[in-house]
Amino acid sequence: MTSNQFFVDRLPAGETKFFLDGDEHFHLARVARAKPGDRIWLTDGRKKRMLTEVVSLEADKTWLLPVRLDEEDLKTELILGLGLTRPATMDMIVGKATELGVAQIFPLMTARSFRLPADKLIARKSRWERIARAALKQSKGAILPVINEAASLESILPDLEAQQKIFLDESSQAYFRDILREARPVSAILLIGPEGGWSRKEREVLTAANYQGLSLGGRILRTETAVVSALTLISHFWNW
Amino acid sequence: MTSNQFFVDRLPAGETKFFLDGDEHFHLARVARAKPGDRIWLTDGRKKRMLTEVVSLEADKTWLLPVRLDEEDLKTELILGLGLTRPATMDMIVGKATELGVAQIFPLMTARSFRLPADKLIARKSRWERIARAALKQSKGAILPVINEAASLESILPDLEAQQKIFLDESSQAYFRDILREARPVSAILLIGPEGGWSRKEREVLTAANYQGLSLGGRILRTETAVVSALTLISHFWNW
Repeated sequence: MTSNQFFVDRLPAGETKFFLDGDEHFHLARVARAKPGDRIWLTDGRKKRMLTEVVSLEADKTWLLPVRLDEEDLKTELILGLGLTRPATMDMIVGKATELGVAQIFPLMTARSFRLPADKLIARKSRWERIARAALKQSKGAILPVINEAASLESILPDLEAQQKIFLDESSQAYFRDILREARPVSAILLIGPEGGWSRKEREVLTAANYQGLSLGGRILRTETAVVSALTLISHFWNW
Repeated sequence: MTSNQFFVDRLPAGETKFFLDGDEHFHLARVARAKPGDRIWLTDGRKKRMLTEVVSLEADKTWLLPVRLDEEDLKTELILGLGLTRPATMDMIVGKATELGVAQIFPLMTARSFRLPADKLIARKSRWERIARAALKQSKGAILPVINEAASLESILPDLEAQQKIFLDESSQAYFRDILREARPVSAILLIGPEGGWSRKEREVLTAANYQGLSLGGRILRTETAVVSALTLISHFWNW
């Protein structure tokens, strides 16, 4: 039972007993089979986690007692923009990005990105949100990434603001390690191309928008490996 | 065709035309449908890669001309020991470790590792070797990891030698970043526990054997994510 974490819209204030009803009660009581004395983590997905103890179960509600309130303080707010890849790869990436503490995900339509019709994209967004919730539960994180609607690279660039702007560029002679030793930024955006990479024009657009192209090194990595690698490097040096 | 890489036992010396026959010929001619003028990478899996050009195809052989010989020089020889996980996770890890340039993999039997009978382990080893070959082709690397027979942690510790010895320890207060800034070692061993982690006794054994416990940070990562993260950090700072 110690491995369970549940989502709530709002964590209770104060330290008195409270209850969950509806779906959360159902999941606690029927699916996770919580028993009095079990400890359960709750999160609002917006940085806060609460450790609680199950006091009692009624037919329609589970009573809990707060034990401890944590705030997850990732020091760098990390935004990931990702050229749409094949669906299975995209699913994997959304889960891994959530595990690794990303605050927002922008699915990008780029010259070489995987093509999906608009109605499919809407269904995909719901799917990615479910994957992110499951990944956050599993990783016991408290930050559920906001998943934005898919949009073209050019259309979102003017609205993306962060102290450090990076794009993954296999051909760059600058490496991630070159910037990780610097002081951590308050916010960072990392843009990663789809399986076929960036077009030449996209590289130019990114460079003109003050994005720094960084390489992961000498190997050709699969897209999902490259995402995990780049996010790991940034998180490990800047987030903790 | 530019994405094809083939294994050969020995790369030809010199710069004159040579041929492949047998399976390699079959794959080139029938599966990859090579045509005169196509460029093909060959590797011996032991650091060398050769770019070649297809000259002509006969019924039983493919004639190739050497274009360029590369040597992949990973500066730190990296050995990965991994507590046996669920088969699907282990398969994924072998592929990712190959992509990221590991030289050797030791599947470890530990207190909490996934149990497999001896005959299954032999079949698994062949499977992992196939996965590693496929991953190396895809990543265009030139180092095919040696996959050792599964053995108990205690039995292999006395034989493992490297300049830097690390084990992944979620509870450690020392982070990977603390050692990555130091000069790169010639060789490093990284030991990662199975899904359930190390037992207390195993931690003691590892510490007694001069392994340093390092943490990846504040999140609980899935085993395959943790492996990619730890290998990325080491490779990115030490290998290139």
